[in-house]
Amino acid sequence: MSKRIAGPEIERLIQLLSKVPGLGPRSARRAALHLIKKKEQLLAPLAAAMGEAVDKVRVCSTCGNVDTADPCMICTDARRDSGTIIVVEDVSDLWALERATAMNAKFHVLGGTLSPLDGIGPDQLNIKQLVTRVAEGGIREIILAVNATVEGQTTAHYLTDQLSGFDVKVTRLAHGVPVGGELDYLDDGTLAAALKSRTVF
Amino acid sequence: MSKRIAGPEIERLIQLLSKVPGLGPRSARRAALHLIKKKEQLLAPLAAAMGEAVDKVRVCSTCGNVDTADPCMICTDARRDSGTIIVVEDVSDLWALERATAMNAKFHVLGGTLSPLDGIGPDQLNIKQLVTRVAEGGIREIILAVNATVEGQTTAHYLTDQLSGFDVKVTRLAHGVPVGGELDYLDDGTLAAALKSRTVF
Repeated sequence: MSKRIAGPEIERLIQLLSKVPGLGPRSARRAALHLIKKKEQLLAPLAAAMGEAVDKVRVCSTCGNVDTADPCMICTDARRDSGTIIVVEDVSDLWALERATAMNAKFHVLGGTLSPLDGIGPDQLNIKQLVTRVAEGGIREIILAVNATVEGQTTAHYLTDQLSGFDVKVTRLAHGVPVGGELDYLDDGTLAAALKSRTVF
Repeated sequence: MSKRIAGPEIERLIQLLSKVPGLGPRSARRAALHLIKKKEQLLAPLAAAMGEAVDKVRVCSTCGNVDTADPCMICTDARRDSGTIIVVEDVSDLWALERATAMNAKFHVLGGTLSPLDGIGPDQLNIKQLVTRVAEGGIREIILAVNATVEGQTTAHYLTDQLSGFDVKVTRLAHGVPVGGELDYLDDGTLAAALKSRTVF
């Protein structure tokens, strides 16, 4: 039985903080103490920001992104090419691709991958909405930016099937050597794919 | 110039989370996304817990601990020996000693160590209040549980001076080999202290 060291409000704050990814029980205590010490500069603004997020954050009914507006900022951005949709598994993938700022396209978030063993079929993912977007017309290219895992590739094949009836180009991300990567540390599959898809220097 | 990927509320949440100790810019994004996805189970309770902490947390006017009550839970705990006060630099040290549950004593939090170069003199620390507690009588022992750093030891010497006029025993933590520690990795000072303070087996 561990002794109570502070009031229940502080214990509860520590307990909830320990559930945040990146924080464990020990770092949650350190974080709670830091927040309490910086009550006015950090704890109060963070509490307000979280409260506002609870009230305002919603899932975009068009693309499945999370934002404080529906449709989201990306769907309503007129400067983006609305003829290209990048399909991702998760919002974190969307954020990663946006940070890379490689394309000025629209997005579609599936919310996961097909995984029959976990009971995740096409109806559990945001797939119907994607087909609807393509059926509405104006889409030239669908880029399947799913993870290079078995589930990701299965999902990519299923989506290709679903979109085969439409006049739309379906592409996927290139396999190859990561920029800055050393060949010696790469797996055989990646090296073979990089050789096969070699480009003119 | 990085593109905006979400509404200002989400950007602000990420920015504030990145200031929490243990989270950096990258893990703050991951944490924010996790919190947004678990809006009802985690984000809303955490926002409420933080709001409550902002309203209720205060510094104990007796010992300098942080709690939701003043005097704090430790000062008002009748089962604790009020004749012994453990003096610590910071609330985190108090929490660490309480987790060790080695003593059932009261505490006093200095709020730092003497550090003239940083402009921290006796008046910046919670020292007067400690002398007042001792002067009020009923204290048999003061345990100086300050860090074994130069600043900590300087502060300990200053406190010993301040308390020399009272009929109170002033003690400090033992130096020695950490439990589970290997001699080979210990510094000379610790080994010398452990030899000098050897105990009968």
